[in-house]
Amino acid sequence: MTDKASNRRLALLVEYDGTAYGGSQHQKNAPTVQGVLEDALSRLTGEQIRVALAGRTDAGVHALGQVAAFSTKSRHRPDVVVRACNARLPRDVVVRAASEVDRGFNPRNDARSRHYRYTITTRATRPALLRSRAWHVPQDLDLAAMTAAAGMLQGSHDFAAFTAPSEAERGSTVRIVSRAEWSQAGGVIRFDIEANAFLQRMVRRMVAALVEVGHGRRTMSEFQTLVVEAVPGAATATAPPQGLCLIRVRYESGLFDAETDEDI
Amino acid sequence: MTDKASNRRLALLVEYDGTAYGGSQHQKNAPTVQGVLEDALSRLTGEQIRVALAGRTDAGVHALGQVAAFSTKSRHRPDVVVRACNARLPRDVVVRAASEVDRGFNPRNDARSRHYRYTITTRATRPALLRSRAWHVPQDLDLAAMTAAAGMLQGSHDFAAFTAPSEAERGSTVRIVSRAEWSQAGGVIRFDIEANAFLQRMVRRMVAALVEVGHGRRTMSEFQTLVVEAVPGAATATAPPQGLCLIRVRYESGLFDAETDEDI
Repeated sequence: MTDKASNRRLALLVEYDGTAYGGSQHQKNAPTVQGVLEDALSRLTGEQIRVALAGRTDAGVHALGQVAAFSTKSRHRPDVVVRACNARLPRDVVVRAASEVDRGFNPRNDARSRHYRYTITTRATRPALLRSRAWHVPQDLDLAAMTAAAGMLQGSHDFAAFTAPSEAERGSTVRIVSRAEWSQAGGVIRFDIEANAFLQRMVRRMVAALVEVGHGRRTMSEFQTLVVEAVPGAATATAPPQGLCLIRVRYESGLFDAETDEDI
Repeated sequence: MTDKASNRRLALLVEYDGTAYGGSQHQKNAPTVQGVLEDALSRLTGEQIRVALAGRTDAGVHALGQVAAFSTKSRHRPDVVVRACNARLPRDVVVRAASEVDRGFNPRNDARSRHYRYTITTRATRPALLRSRAWHVPQDLDLAAMTAAAGMLQGSHDFAAFTAPSEAERGSTVRIVSRAEWSQAGGVIRFDIEANAFLQRMVRRMVAALVEVGHGRRTMSEFQTLVVEAVPGAATATAPPQGLCLIRVRYESGLFDAETDEDI
């Protein structure tokens, strides 16, 4: 019962408001989503639980459908893990579902794609209700130009321009973007982007560059140069974290497909 | 310059997250939206400002389009009042627009209609992102039945069943409902209701009774009885405040029509 071979692996579908957290991964001076999950699971199982997450999210970034995984000797049914975990988690983090997975399941490496959404408010005045969920950009934005520029991101490209030079040195910066589109509802605009994987801060750098296009401060051909020339870190501006939300992670197995929805 | 006759009256379009407030009106032991508005306006004008609000909102209730009005001797242009006020207001309250109005303008009595929205999450697990913006009802709800029951609210009716008996004693409880409908997006359902005016807690009592219909705990004919017999306070349950948001107040003059939108 205590030998390594008896370990099970469980995957969790996790939603959180990132406002109070220092990002999803371990950090020294701020509580993290990973930390509160490990704390709740360790108390539940009586073991020292370590969780792996599908997507890194920076401080202040939210998730509707983050995926976590951990190994345990405990025999709790998945639905019991959900209930017991939620009773122990703070109000801004919730486990939406749990599922037993293969012992080798790696939520990060096994993911087929990720879907992020970035929210911007464009009214003249700052938002109150969306203050921790959106970037406030009170100037008029040319959404048609931003949509055209977003189209240039579709497909397989070297996205080195949209990450730090240090990350570009660590490995391939080619990613495959399957969706990159803007939508508008009243004074709120949203950028939905799906890719096989993302470089660090890639979405936030893309959004900042696309907003520069929307302001007319960056031409369409200058934007195209970012994608075509792929100079590491060339898109220097980074949109603030609170506008970003990890909506969904997709797996070949269909894990959590039924439990995930895109409406917050 | 200091005589009463020189007073102007200004109307404000106000958005707030009601989580931290003891309702919109003055109360003894909690900060109120009215209080923080009066504080900001008094500091701005150097006068003792009193504001009147279009709709009372209870503690924890939000507003996207509350309307406030105040009289002042100050000569600040409306756009200056907006900027200066927002610099002095806490982050969870914002003035979206200001407009000079007739000296006799009364935001409450002059309103032609109000639109409220109530949000419910129906997933199995509690929400994290919407935790202060929705009522969590994890059971399966029969939305078709709730829609049929909501239809019974349309038109001119005595809504005494949906308020406290003490309020029913204070005057007519007849109101005209022009819209009462449910919509669904993923695990979120919303109730949009517009009426010439509302009784105290009327929306929250209606929502609770409609959810009872959705659960099958109250039949359609029992719901109809609430509307037809109008026994004061007969709909006893009250949905929690955080699901409720005052979306819009309409005036004959079209005040703030251009500045209000319904997307949060």
